[in-house]
Amino acid sequence: MVVELISVGTELLLGNIVNTNTQFLAEKCALLGLSMYYQTVVGDNHDRLAQTVRTALERSDVVILTGGLGPTEDDMTKEVCAEVMGYPMEEDPHTRERIEEYFRNSAYKVIPDNNWKQAQVPAGARVLDNDNGTAPGLILEKDGKIAVLLPGPPVEMKPMFINQVYPYLQSLQPEVIRSQMIKICGIGESAVEEKLLDLIDGQTNPTIATYAKTGEVHVRVTAKAADEEAARKIMKPVVKEIRRRLGDFVYSTKENETLEMAVVKLLEKYELTATTAESCTGGLLAGRLVNVPGASEIFREGLITYSNKAKRKYLDVSKSTLKKYGAVSEQTAKEMAAGGVFATDSDVCVAVTGLAGPDGGTEEKPVGLVYIATYLKGSVKVESYHFKGDRAKIREQAVVKALDLLRRSILDNYR
Amino acid sequence: MVVELISVGTELLLGNIVNTNTQFLAEKCALLGLSMYYQTVVGDNHDRLAQTVRTALERSDVVILTGGLGPTEDDMTKEVCAEVMGYPMEEDPHTRERIEEYFRNSAYKVIPDNNWKQAQVPAGARVLDNDNGTAPGLILEKDGKIAVLLPGPPVEMKPMFINQVYPYLQSLQPEVIRSQMIKICGIGESAVEEKLLDLIDGQTNPTIATYAKTGEVHVRVTAKAADEEAARKIMKPVVKEIRRRLGDFVYSTKENETLEMAVVKLLEKYELTATTAESCTGGLLAGRLVNVPGASEIFREGLITYSNKAKRKYLDVSKSTLKKYGAVSEQTAKEMAAGGVFATDSDVCVAVTGLAGPDGGTEEKPVGLVYIATYLKGSVKVESYHFKGDRAKIREQAVVKALDLLRRSILDNYR
Repeated sequence: MVVELISVGTELLLGNIVNTNTQFLAEKCALLGLSMYYQTVVGDNHDRLAQTVRTALERSDVVILTGGLGPTEDDMTKEVCAEVMGYPMEEDPHTRERIEEYFRNSAYKVIPDNNWKQAQVPAGARVLDNDNGTAPGLILEKDGKIAVLLPGPPVEMKPMFINQVYPYLQSLQPEVIRSQMIKICGIGESAVEEKLLDLIDGQTNPTIATYAKTGEVHVRVTAKAADEEAARKIMKPVVKEIRRRLGDFVYSTKENETLEMAVVKLLEKYELTATTAESCTGGLLAGRLVNVPGASEIFREGLITYSNKAKRKYLDVSKSTLKKYGAVSEQTAKEMAAGGVFATDSDVCVAVTGLAGPDGGTEEKPVGLVYIATYLKGSVKVESYHFKGDRAKIREQAVVKALDLLRRSILDNYR
Repeated sequence: MVVELISVGTELLLGNIVNTNTQFLAEKCALLGLSMYYQTVVGDNHDRLAQTVRTALERSDVVILTGGLGPTEDDMTKEVCAEVMGYPMEEDPHTRERIEEYFRNSAYKVIPDNNWKQAQVPAGARVLDNDNGTAPGLILEKDGKIAVLLPGPPVEMKPMFINQVYPYLQSLQPEVIRSQMIKICGIGESAVEEKLLDLIDGQTNPTIATYAKTGEVHVRVTAKAADEEAARKIMKPVVKEIRRRLGDFVYSTKENETLEMAVVKLLEKYELTATTAESCTGGLLAGRLVNVPGASEIFREGLITYSNKAKRKYLDVSKSTLKKYGAVSEQTAKEMAAGGVFATDSDVCVAVTGLAGPDGGTEEKPVGLVYIATYLKGSVKVESYHFKGDRAKIREQAVVKALDLLRRSILDNYR
């Protein structure tokens, strides 16, 4: 089955916003095993939108449109699709009720007149409730072709797609498609591919695909089968073999588990508290740990020691170390990590010191040089990196490597 | 003049990456005053790509393609465009030399054979040097239609577009288009629009457009004129009037100046040092300040006090305040700000305490409730917010409001 995406909105043509809906939908369609050959962005213009929808319905089985379902005159996706597919419009009493309810619970005192437009739907279309706004989604079916209309704001579109459209598309498929994610840190994409090359080349079902993320590699194993159990059975030995080959580089096999979640889970498992001592990352590392709900159980305080004076005051880094080796050095990183543990009475500290640039680099210590250290129960680990990219990119990569060193330090000490 | 974008790449159709190239190019084309009606994504497939290019050249004057210029068999954008527009291929000696040079300066010892494919160009095409990779860009002109071919990686595409394509497209335009950015914080988009409604409705040259960003509003004034000076003259009174109406809500009129840059500039101007005392934002606020190169002049240390114990230990928040009002309260925020100044000997401290969720909210103190306080020369300011969204979104908004409160505190004290 072939699916294609149409994003409707002049704001996309003007470059006011990045089109993240398309990436989200494309990834989910790939997961469903649907083929996709085209994605189009078109503005809020009757003739161009109608022509785009016509072309898409001719060459694809399913067309998913996002945007243009709002209450203003400009919004015309629903009307244009109804026209192209030959549906008359009618008011949907259920949607009218939902709009009334939405406004009752909102700060608005009166319902703007133009919002009633959103209760008009193509007669006989399947209406998708919107739990996060007033525009309902729609599914239109005609002559073996399907149009799925979704609101543009991601906060409305994503849950509607996941909860209502994904199961619908799944039910149209003769086969079940299941996939398993394997998330990896501490090794590059080409090294991962090299370790898995024979598996990647040799497999057609399941397939194995690698994706590079900042400081991470994600491997997705995808199987097609008659039912869920059969799909899982096909994947199992392949996933097991990939995990065996990659060992501790694998930090998670859960779709929604981030690196910081995996780290927090490990800290919780071994009942450890952690702290951070940051120079060039300046709080971003702690900020990512705290992004995990419930992080307060394992993280109580963190220190941002940007100046040398602060490194001495809070972390007791010795004056002679700073003088002899400099703030960006293995020795300083080690003393920062040890000092963090003693200053905060935590079980483990991860410390980062480096040159994020753009200025301040030398031949000996170039911009991008970052030292990361952990101190856990008297054991110190330190690693150095030379990251490429601008200031923001260098700091982002340092945060990922720091989280990963913390993860590996715990594994090495407790397993 | 009508321009249209084609992004070539199966990885986009599979949702492996977000298409940020399109937003970048669309924004720049809008700045150039070009009209855009369509953006298309198509895979590395000869027939579909050729058809897409043909359709685009029929309905638009300029077609900008990104991606598919690499050295592998899959990459065919150049060959397909040459075929559609009737250009024979030939080797470009200058590009061959540049590829040799690129590899001499790289870690690779030998040049992979397939890289020579990148020296093949449509005969007579304008070749655009690639300073960040081996694939040259190309401009093909035929029968009044133009195709611009750019490499897909943003790090190669963006500088090539800015330095070589932007001036080229500008030279095709009969008029000069200039725009002026006005960046605003502390007031919502609809309130900004209300204040500017008569200006927005009344103007056709310059035009005024507003864009909502997280916690910020950007206003762009754009003028068309015969030359640069005339364009600036048209914009000047309008920009002045907008600044007058929005007053201190305007934090910058520079295209590339971020809120944290504006704050660091103010701190530098008044020779102030700043520190941060963070609870729910957990380092993100300091992380954003440190994103400004040279922040070490105004920021030396920051405290992440996630637990009550840490708030007492580092910031001397009183036990009775925490007990009586709770960690998420106006009183705690104020004491955190004051305590930050005394603990670090900085001139000003900005403190954040709030409930980022998803758990821990009550009717009285719901998730999203955040208190932000500043302490500067004995003067305290405190504000409360009730942010919507998930944990990450709540924390992101809190950081923006904290930076803005810091900015306004400095303005109020020093002006």
